[in-house]
Amino acid sequence: MPQISNYTYDEITIGQTATCSKRVDVQDIQLFAALSGDVNPVHLDAGFAATTQFKGCIAHGMLSGAIISAAIAMQLPGPGSIYLSQSLRFRLPVRPGDTITLTLEVTEKKDKRGIVVLDCTVLNQQGKRVLTGTAEVMAPAEKLVLERPSTPRVHIEA
Amino acid sequence: MPQISNYTYDEITIGQTATCSKRVDVQDIQLFAALSGDVNPVHLDAGFAATTQFKGCIAHGMLSGAIISAAIAMQLPGPGSIYLSQSLRFRLPVRPGDTITLTLEVTEKKDKRGIVVLDCTVLNQQGKRVLTGTAEVMAPAEKLVLERPSTPRVHIEA
Repeated sequence: MPQISNYTYDEITIGQTATCSKRVDVQDIQLFAALSGDVNPVHLDAGFAATTQFKGCIAHGMLSGAIISAAIAMQLPGPGSIYLSQSLRFRLPVRPGDTITLTLEVTEKKDKRGIVVLDCTVLNQQGKRVLTGTAEVMAPAEKLVLERPSTPRVHIEA
Repeated sequence: MPQISNYTYDEITIGQTATCSKRVDVQDIQLFAALSGDVNPVHLDAGFAATTQFKGCIAHGMLSGAIISAAIAMQLPGPGSIYLSQSLRFRLPVRPGDTITLTLEVTEKKDKRGIVVLDCTVLNQQGKRVLTGTAEVMAPAEKLVLERPSTPRVHIEA
């Protein structure tokens, strides 16, 4: 079985990073629309989107937010973390076919409550910043090594 | 055809609100896991989740963030908005079966760039705050009345 583990508060160091990449496809945008209810035509209707300042469909900004939250829960600090807050600044649109790369970097540790502050930067395949932000997370006190649940398989109806 | 429309910057008033409710089901959590890659067992493995301080599965915090982003895009200001920033403070867990109610309230208008500031509050069915935050949105200058794209239909494989 594949496993996931975490970094405890004591293990985490200032400057520690984690990174992940994802290609954002039309299917991701459709899934986000189904999940959130955001069927704004700038995301789903290529004909309409072509008439906007974006000149084509763009992904929901919060889709990148979802990727950040996943990296915090799965990688740094990982399981056992308690997500306290997140700020997000949407800088550039992400388009279907773009590959985004997120980097989390620990910038501060608050010993009193075991909180780590993470700088969050999402770049597109051209190295341009599409999203920046800051997360505050209560890091786990205990080391966990857990079975990784399988990812639910979803199908989008054509 | 169902339609969606927006509030232009000039139409928006301080104190204006929009609200929406959603029951969060296991299927929403599975969809969010598939979309984000966050398969942390606290969300997906009831047996493991029962051993944590949460005493059962909880929804991903950013699922509530997705609901906020949808209400901004669909309701206030609606289509033509440009999402600039969002802050989120996760206060209480949301569990499968909970019904969450989001209220957006306009607290400020910044005439120079046509930006509105929205206070975002998500309550659970007990009226307790599960998430609070602030959004900054460039409101549309032009009135839009658009066909509402149908929501993509997704199936989760058992």
